[in-house]
Amino acid sequence: MTKPQPFDIEKYLHVVQSFHGYAAPGVIIGGFMVNYAKSKIQEGVLFKAICETPACLPDAIQLLTPCTIGNDRLKIFNFGRYALSLYDKEKGDGFRVFLLPQKIDEKSEIKNWFFKLKSKPEQNTNLLLAQIKEAGEKLCGIHPICVRPEFLKKQKRGEIIICPCCREAYPAEDGEVCRGCQVESPYIIPDTLENPILEFNALKSHGVY
Amino acid sequence: MTKPQPFDIEKYLHVVQSFHGYAAPGVIIGGFMVNYAKSKIQEGVLFKAICETPACLPDAIQLLTPCTIGNDRLKIFNFGRYALSLYDKEKGDGFRVFLLPQKIDEKSEIKNWFFKLKSKPEQNTNLLLAQIKEAGEKLCGIHPICVRPEFLKKQKRGEIIICPCCREAYPAEDGEVCRGCQVESPYIIPDTLENPILEFNALKSHGVY
Repeated sequence: MTKPQPFDIEKYLHVVQSFHGYAAPGVIIGGFMVNYAKSKIQEGVLFKAICETPACLPDAIQLLTPCTIGNDRLKIFNFGRYALSLYDKEKGDGFRVFLLPQKIDEKSEIKNWFFKLKSKPEQNTNLLLAQIKEAGEKLCGIHPICVRPEFLKKQKRGEIIICPCCREAYPAEDGEVCRGCQVESPYIIPDTLENPILEFNALKSHGVY
Repeated sequence: MTKPQPFDIEKYLHVVQSFHGYAAPGVIIGGFMVNYAKSKIQEGVLFKAICETPACLPDAIQLLTPCTIGNDRLKIFNFGRYALSLYDKEKGDGFRVFLLPQKIDEKSEIKNWFFKLKSKPEQNTNLLLAQIKEAGEKLCGIHPICVRPEFLKKQKRGEIIICPCCREAYPAEDGEVCRGCQVESPYIIPDTLENPILEFNALKSHGVY
């Protein structure tokens, strides 16, 4: 895999298809947004990204910048806004790019898609993609931002220890058991397996810790 | 970009370098973990993923499965555990793969890295990667899981409206202003720009809504 640099819409569509699964309108428009923000960042600046929605846009950021969710250079704040920021990792200054509703043509397929005025099967996908490609960054607003110092600090995980409940490793600072054992699990574990919560409580009642 | 299918460690290392930025030990070990979980999922099953840490492992999932953070097939629960699950999108049944601390050789570089016993510059990167490649999925445990029904429901965003505060679009169900205007912003906006919070309060005090 090579991230398409510089931005080339056709190469980008190809990468989106492979990574995201299909040419989703949000990822395509996101490509223009990311490219717009990148154009304002000085050459050589090590930058990070904030994405204000978990929908589609994070994949555009991951495909067009070095920032990924797993390398800690992309953070998602679920504000429900179609917006992203790229900013200097050390100083925090950068640019925020967002979709400007008033720049979306009233009668366009972009309007129908973005405001959910038509269901997916009702949308004219080809027309929608053609309109997005034509409009590009003209749909976007941009303004400078500075990320608050508390968000620039690198979180250190500190000591790693074994959870007495699930027996897996976790950061000691999370508490006497790991976070996964502190909250309701998203899983139902089949009865054939040990129940780690019960086991933990049993250990506790025996004064093991 | 092509996601390396079937799993080939050398091709995978190449893709990791490009996407994640460098051959991070966590993404490499994550590759074996994802591959192990995938091997238990029946052919043709449309699956989703849960990752129990935001560190490194989500990138292995995004590179080796169709699940990405932007296409809503990957969810991250920050439990601080090096574990992931792949599960049937409709039924919720699947498998959870996790690192088993007791399977990590006491004197290995993997132990030094995973338990943070050595700082990054002190680690022998080549030895660490060689040990991870040799151990592969032997470091992992696996068990069946079933994801709770409430996590299987698809969240519908409903109507999209304009926030009276920032004038951007957001899901109406989030409240009378968008979530970004409800909480403290991660940004400091330069004085030269309007202050949307003040503007919002001014509108409110004038009984506009």
